[in-house]
Amino acid sequence: VLRYRIAIVGSGAIGSYYGGKLAAAGSDVHFLMRGDLESLRRNGLHIHGPDEKVHVAKMQCYNSTAQIGPCDLVLIALKTTANHAIVDLVPPLLHEGTMLLTLQNGLGNEELLARHFGTERVLGGLCFIALRRISRTEIERYAYGDIVLGEYRRTAQPRTHEVAAGFHRAGVSCTVTDDLLLQRWRKLVWNIPFNGLSILAGGLDTAAMLADQSLRQATVALMEEVVAAANACGHALGRNAIEEQIRRTATMGSYKPSTLLDWEAGRELEIEAIWGEPLRRAAAAGADMPRLKIIYAVLRALGTPKRA
Amino acid sequence: VLRYRIAIVGSGAIGSYYGGKLAAAGSDVHFLMRGDLESLRRNGLHIHGPDEKVHVAKMQCYNSTAQIGPCDLVLIALKTTANHAIVDLVPPLLHEGTMLLTLQNGLGNEELLARHFGTERVLGGLCFIALRRISRTEIERYAYGDIVLGEYRRTAQPRTHEVAAGFHRAGVSCTVTDDLLLQRWRKLVWNIPFNGLSILAGGLDTAAMLADQSLRQATVALMEEVVAAANACGHALGRNAIEEQIRRTATMGSYKPSTLLDWEAGRELEIEAIWGEPLRRAAAAGADMPRLKIIYAVLRALGTPKRA
Repeated sequence: VLRYRIAIVGSGAIGSYYGGKLAAAGSDVHFLMRGDLESLRRNGLHIHGPDEKVHVAKMQCYNSTAQIGPCDLVLIALKTTANHAIVDLVPPLLHEGTMLLTLQNGLGNEELLARHFGTERVLGGLCFIALRRISRTEIERYAYGDIVLGEYRRTAQPRTHEVAAGFHRAGVSCTVTDDLLLQRWRKLVWNIPFNGLSILAGGLDTAAMLADQSLRQATVALMEEVVAAANACGHALGRNAIEEQIRRTATMGSYKPSTLLDWEAGRELEIEAIWGEPLRRAAAAGADMPRLKIIYAVLRALGTPKRA
Repeated sequence: VLRYRIAIVGSGAIGSYYGGKLAAAGSDVHFLMRGDLESLRRNGLHIHGPDEKVHVAKMQCYNSTAQIGPCDLVLIALKTTANHAIVDLVPPLLHEGTMLLTLQNGLGNEELLARHFGTERVLGGLCFIALRRISRTEIERYAYGDIVLGEYRRTAQPRTHEVAAGFHRAGVSCTVTDDLLLQRWRKLVWNIPFNGLSILAGGLDTAAMLADQSLRQATVALMEEVVAAANACGHALGRNAIEEQIRRTATMGSYKPSTLLDWEAGRELEIEAIWGEPLRRAAAAGADMPRLKIIYAVLRALGTPKRA
């Protein structure tokens, strides 16, 4: 059991799932969330999935981080579109050694934490997981669940392995990486085409996208662009990442990327973290991303209220 | 007055407008159209627009080209998505010297006519016009109206100037070109980005697209790709075409491209003529069009019924 005092900032599906797993394994977990907490306090949190049935009977949940107070580990699981709130939410949670672990999508989240709270506090985790929040008290996991964990701008430290072991003991598969940013780019090889084109193509799942010859080619072409951009930014990502992602996706069935789910639910899209920031970093490194520019422009327009 | 016997194949907005103008000027015009002809025969066709009010009292309209019989000039104004019908519709209209003039969008229409009915019959016209069909008997012209007319695979002939003069006398501004295909590519510099991105971006008009910095850049980048492709295909299109189109569009106000109107009305999109065929010709000429490939793939997916 992770003997840390833990805060979960942003208790949507991701935050509730990983926080719930840690709490169920006996860690001291405090959830920040908006809205009415009564039902959670009364019923606890239910998590179910393939071979998984967890009930966190006693949920420690709050509407304010001031009520939580200093913690050893803070999991940031806000949508990146809410990142502007971080600067106010985090300070009450800090003591001198507090670790900040962002489980958010895309690029720029570690940098934001480092800028405001210091580089050495920051870790990042990539979540490979398919979740659905059924209600405030119920989370369903469809597939996967593992985390790839790393330090911001340095190789793995003893604490990194300690946190990973804690997740592992809570039933969450957790791998440690010495190059977090490389792994973030590797994940973007998937997210940039699939999350984007699934929306642009009118709501297609991954199986439908792979079955369409032109869309599959467009997907691969975008992946090539991302791999080239990663390398231009100094991350030695091999072209085999592309084949790997396509092969893995083919085993996933009819999967809807998270941004498509956001889109269908009318939620704000994580445009800057997934498309905007990679584009800006590539441009700064001298790499042109013509396909990504088109996707980004269209997604931004889709995400903006239309003129009357 | 054009002393030809004229058939209009496809009496939507474009066919009704140009056929109506020729008929109002005294030409012998026969309209092929689907559905009930009674209201048109009873009320005639009304055309109105800026400084324009035309009533064609006596409309010669039919459900079959066999009822029309041989003509001197056939205007093809079908949506390109209905091109499969041409091989059956045209033969009853032919005598030895019948001219076939396609007023359709994009690339491939002259080639289809030439393949089935002989190269020397074929002319093409680019229509710069903003129309709306209000009802079966009423067409509204918002703006423009001019035609650029040329021969298929040869310079202008005496008959080209004769047809142009006929349009002109009917109140339709008509310019003759010696290089029809170059003009088609020049028009695609506009249609490929504006018709495509307006749909992908969720239904934006031209003013909204130009006002969005990212979309405007994406538009210009696509235009550059089209200019390069045209040149690779042997058409000496200058880069000034881009600036020209952007400047012209800025004067158009909140204009909705025809494909966006099709999309909003749930009609089939002219994907192959506007995006598919240019892409294939560019590829055959060794020109890569990465941005167009993305647009094409997405539009095809949007135009295909979704999997359940």
